[in-house]
Amino acid sequence: MGNCCDCVTGFFCRPKNTNVRVSLPAVCFVWQIAMIILFGVFIRYDEESDAHWVEFKREHNITSDIENDFYFRYPSFQDVHVMIFVGFGFLMTFLKRYSFGGVGFNFLIAAFGLQWALLMQGWFHSLDPATGKIYIGVESLINADFCCAGSLIAYGALLGKVSPVQLMVVTLFGVTLFAVEEYIILTLLHCRDAGGSMVIHAFGGYYGLAISWVLYRPNLHQSKRLNGSVYHSDVFAMIGTLFLWMFWPSFNSAITDHGDGQHRAAINTYLALASSVLTTVAISSMSQKTGKLDMVHIQNATLAGGVAMGTAAEFMITPYGSLIVGFCTGIISTFGYLYITPFLEKYLKLQDTCGVHNLHALPGMLGGFIGAIVAAAATESVYSAEGLINVFDFEGSFANRGVGTQGGFQAAGTCVAIAFGLVGGAIVGLILRIPIWGDPADDNCYDDEVYWEVRK
Amino acid sequence: MGNCCDCVTGFFCRPKNTNVRVSLPAVCFVWQIAMIILFGVFIRYDEESDAHWVEFKREHNITSDIENDFYFRYPSFQDVHVMIFVGFGFLMTFLKRYSFGGVGFNFLIAAFGLQWALLMQGWFHSLDPATGKIYIGVESLINADFCCAGSLIAYGALLGKVSPVQLMVVTLFGVTLFAVEEYIILTLLHCRDAGGSMVIHAFGGYYGLAISWVLYRPNLHQSKRLNGSVYHSDVFAMIGTLFLWMFWPSFNSAITDHGDGQHRAAINTYLALASSVLTTVAISSMSQKTGKLDMVHIQNATLAGGVAMGTAAEFMITPYGSLIVGFCTGIISTFGYLYITPFLEKYLKLQDTCGVHNLHALPGMLGGFIGAIVAAAATESVYSAEGLINVFDFEGSFANRGVGTQGGFQAAGTCVAIAFGLVGGAIVGLILRIPIWGDPADDNCYDDEVYWEVRK
Amino acid sequence: MGNCCDCVTGFFCRPKNTNVRVSLPAVCFVWQIAMIILFGVFIRYDEESDAHWVEFKREHNITSDIENDFYFRYPSFQDVHVMIFVGFGFLMTFLKRYSFGGVGFNFLIAAFGLQWALLMQGWFHSLDPATGKIYIGVESLINADFCCAGSLIAYGALLGKVSPVQLMVVTLFGVTLFAVEEYIILTLLHCRDAGGSMVIHAFGGYYGLAISWVLYRPNLHQSKRLNGSVYHSDVFAMIGTLFLWMFWPSFNSAITDHGDGQHRAAINTYLALASSVLTTVAISSMSQKTGKLDMVHIQNATLAGGVAMGTAAEFMITPYGSLIVGFCTGIISTFGYLYITPFLEKYLKLQDTCGVHNLHALPGMLGGFIGAIVAAAATESVYSAEGLINVFDFEGSFANRGVGTQGGFQAAGTCVAIAFGLVGGAIVGLILRIPIWGDPADDNCYDDEVYWEVRK
Repeated sequence: MGNCCDCVTGFFCRPKNTNVRVSLPAVCFVWQIAMIILFGVFIRYDEESDAHWVEFKREHNITSDIENDFYFRYPSFQDVHVMIFVGFGFLMTFLKRYSFGGVGFNFLIAAFGLQWALLMQGWFHSLDPATGKIYIGVESLINADFCCAGSLIAYGALLGKVSPVQLMVVTLFGVTLFAVEEYIILTLLHCRDAGGSMVIHAFGGYYGLAISWVLYRPNLHQSKRLNGSVYHSDVFAMIGTLFLWMFWPSFNSAITDHGDGQHRAAINTYLALASSVLTTVAISSMSQKTGKLDMVHIQNATLAGGVAMGTAAEFMITPYGSLIVGFCTGIISTFGYLYITPFLEKYLKLQDTCGVHNLHALPGMLGGFIGAIVAAAATESVYSAEGLINVFDFEGSFANRGVGTQGGFQAAGTCVAIAFGLVGGAIVGLILRIPIWGDPADDNCYDDEVYWEVRK
Repeated sequence: MGNCCDCVTGFFCRPKNTNVRVSLPAVCFVWQIAMIILFGVFIRYDEESDAHWVEFKREHNITSDIENDFYFRYPSFQDVHVMIFVGFGFLMTFLKRYSFGGVGFNFLIAAFGLQWALLMQGWFHSLDPATGKIYIGVESLINADFCCAGSLIAYGALLGKVSPVQLMVVTLFGVTLFAVEEYIILTLLHCRDAGGSMVIHAFGGYYGLAISWVLYRPNLHQSKRLNGSVYHSDVFAMIGTLFLWMFWPSFNSAITDHGDGQHRAAINTYLALASSVLTTVAISSMSQKTGKLDMVHIQNATLAGGVAMGTAAEFMITPYGSLIVGFCTGIISTFGYLYITPFLEKYLKLQDTCGVHNLHALPGMLGGFIGAIVAAAATESVYSAEGLINVFDFEGSFANRGVGTQGGFQAAGTCVAIAFGLVGGAIVGLILRIPIWGDPADDNCYDDEVYWEVRK
Repeated sequence: MGNCCDCVTGFFCRPKNTNVRVSLPAVCFVWQIAMIILFGVFIRYDEESDAHWVEFKREHNITSDIENDFYFRYPSFQDVHVMIFVGFGFLMTFLKRYSFGGVGFNFLIAAFGLQWALLMQGWFHSLDPATGKIYIGVESLINADFCCAGSLIAYGALLGKVSPVQLMVVTLFGVTLFAVEEYIILTLLHCRDAGGSMVIHAFGGYYGLAISWVLYRPNLHQSKRLNGSVYHSDVFAMIGTLFLWMFWPSFNSAITDHGDGQHRAAINTYLALASSVLTTVAISSMSQKTGKLDMVHIQNATLAGGVAMGTAAEFMITPYGSLIVGFCTGIISTFGYLYITPFLEKYLKLQDTCGVHNLHALPGMLGGFIGAIVAAAATESVYSAEGLINVFDFEGSFANRGVGTQGGFQAAGTCVAIAFGLVGGAIVGLILRIPIWGDPADDNCYDDEVYWEVRK
């Protein structure tokens, strides 16, 4: 399987062994059994999914089953679910011989990640101190899918260069870090981040980049022949792009407030995404001598508007404000693919297969700061007094927080997310360098043959 | 088109003629005209889809249009609809030269089957004795899609070996048998089976296997070159897998009780499916010398948790109970692909193209028995007194049935479903051996050229 | 890039230059900036998506957030959104080397069109005279998607023969014309057309055909080698077909009345589509010597029932009436692909790449007339007095209109839609003949290489 004795940092060095016949089943079995035990101890149905709902309804004077949160959120949940599995999965099928790994490993780690997320997020956000239990409903499922998204984004930077066992480790730590940073940002700092510009995209993007940086492969050019698309693999990737693009309004509105909150978040995201498409096309066309478009840009940068609206979508950013966000991030993201990714690889020794820097890290960071600005600019006349309290949740110990302060905390939250991504990713990267995980040799990357039975 | 004079049982024997130019249009036209006439006689809008709804609302003190069942069930209906047409259809595109037949014939027979299902299920379940009419609404559409699923599962066992005319016959009888067994199981035995482990999967699986057994082709090895996938056909099949996997929570919750019933069924199915993915990967990896994964397992066995939760999803099986179900069925299903399918082919002369035994028949049967056990273990403290009545519908003549009895009936229902599948399938198989249906010769199977204009 | 000096009408004639490096970015940037400015001036959130919703609820005695229109329409909106981007997009991937252009340009023009549609439809339908603003909510998003559909249909006739800049022009004028004809048909003539048989399909179809007729290319046979499918491109196209087919019930019901209106429209469309599949298969099989099916028919004509139900879906057409509509239009559409398209090309010099005449123009026109007949035949006994008023909106200045008159107006509306399509298309076609748009030479059509970086 080639040899890697030319690895520069070189503190671990022996021939690569990509046999995962023991490690992959072991990880899957042991962790799944652990999930079952922990679910047995901690996880229960919440009052809206428990058979006691009939009693609960009566006690709370709820007149109709339609008031069950299921009917507010389940359609959005399913859209998010499609984004996680088909959206992220097919977006990563673009490589000519790594489509199985793209969609298949995405499937594996999301299926594990969502279970671990229900536990981690439950412990941090919804553990009932009286009973010691976590009560789950449809909103928990959405949050679990969101939590996975962080690790799936990280996978985008690592695509083709790591083993499935490494990806399980990335996901285990990714979900854990996510739950902690989310607790700090949403609960301690009391930020709003419904669509996760900060907690999902900035965190996930920088997490993946930091891991990839630590795992730098100086001889990756040996696999260059496979690091690209063929005609049909680009069409497959468009399935991912389009499902992400179409359902992003559901992503950003899935857990916002009932009523106007969900409604407004969907509209804003829809507009920002539309705007991104036009500027992506413009920049992509300008970058080629004859104005030809590049599929990489169309597949990725068109989504930047959705990422950047993750925080501000539920705010009164105005429809034209949403268009402006999409306009700018479409440009920035396409420039990222044209100039920043090659720069990072050449000068920072950072190999980012899917360009998650341009689609998630950077637009996510921008989205965090956009959210901060829009929050700081909020006024009672625009939101109404009650609306302001609702949107920013100025209740309890935060009743007296002003919008300026809120803006400051939103900006701080963005920094926390980035810091967690960078530091966490660096540590996880070091763990992944231990030579027991079955990762491929430099001349064997981007190749499904390593981990899949491929029929000729 | 080759000759089949080596057919072992040999009671019909002449050269194959795959020309369906008369039979296929005839079947489509005549049956569609029959549908129109029967719909004219029997099918009407129900009170929620009729223009009299305004009056109905007033008479029944319904305060809002949102109480119309459309808003409770339409999103789930659409998810189920995607599973039937894209899920089943694309799952069957995995063969290298039978993708047109996989997705195209699936489309044809589902479009016919749902019409016939509306009639058959209507006669058995909702014929108004006063008017002699069947009144349909969104729940009828979901049930019609479910009813088709039985026949589409059977198609999985026959994929590549039968003509479209034969498939229409399979569907005509499949839907008919389905409506009868469903009536016996749900109405006479008063079983609960919201996601159809018994009535859909166990029935459909054994129905297809029995047909395939009767249609055994001793010289099928002559088409061996086409009985396999190529790289891109495996990626197409993943579209089917993922849409089935993602929307299975909607499948199992689509017709459960409003409120907690739908909510809980979705959560349980979501968890069982996640768990199946990890154990499928584990067993698949263990089965290869170097730990490589097999796409066949990932495409199919990952779904076993959804099948096995078809009965129990609406019960209080607990979240960890759901994980355990997915854990076990993922293992069993993957073992099925590794050992049972080859065994069935070699010793029972049963050719099962998609391995429906492992994905539907066996997990469906297990799901039926799991449902029986969970029902028998139900208690008032877990469900609440009202909850128990609601979930198991202990009303009217069943008001005094205990949970133990219910468990027994659930188990009996599973056996009824299997019996209907096996006996019905054997009879339909014999009908399909009449040499008038245009089925392909043994050396001509798994080939789209037989029934499709294929451009070079 | 070849020469076109053989163009018959010949009023512009010089060698083709397909370089769009200036024109495409310029159009994208300028128009997107114009959108931002116009949105800034005109577009605001409506009362259901504005943060003042809490106050609005209180003032209007709305007891629950679930009464927000978002929950009535968002699931349908997302289905429509999938149809626009994945449905139309992937349906147009069927050509062997134009899949990027099919799905990519569809993406671009829909993303532009929906923004322009929000403005145009807003000015005509919902401009508040007091404030001079357009207030948007989820129903506006659905209508914007609908409005794009007209231009995307037109793209189907032009596929492979025009530049992206030309498509932007087609969309700019298409959306403009759409908003005007929609205003005339729905507001002035007070027609009902929830699913747009007239305003979307008849208009869009004839619009595209008229453009294509003006852009007739006598030497298009030089690109004949690329005007066809390969095996996998046909499978990709089935993704488009199936998502269109499955979600068409949502399309036709998305903006109908709450309650029975949406419910009935979904049922009727579901049935018509099912019926179309069987007759399409029948005619397709009859048309070949050995009864083989043609993918072109299955991909397209199966959808004709949905198009033809666009007007009548919300009426009490009865379930068997819906089946009859699907039955007939499936036949007519397939015959169109077999005989009318070749006829149009040979004798009318009309090149229609996707056959939009057979799928949209003709079934749309038929749908308009079917709607007229069903409207004229409406009775109080079938609809109830209130139901009749609700369905046909006989209120205000239309309170005394009878159903017969309504039928007449519906028929007139169909003619208006066709006239707008033909005249508008002819004018736009002439504009597109100006040799500044970068369209390909006759021997260079149907080829992604012209506008895309294609990796070998």
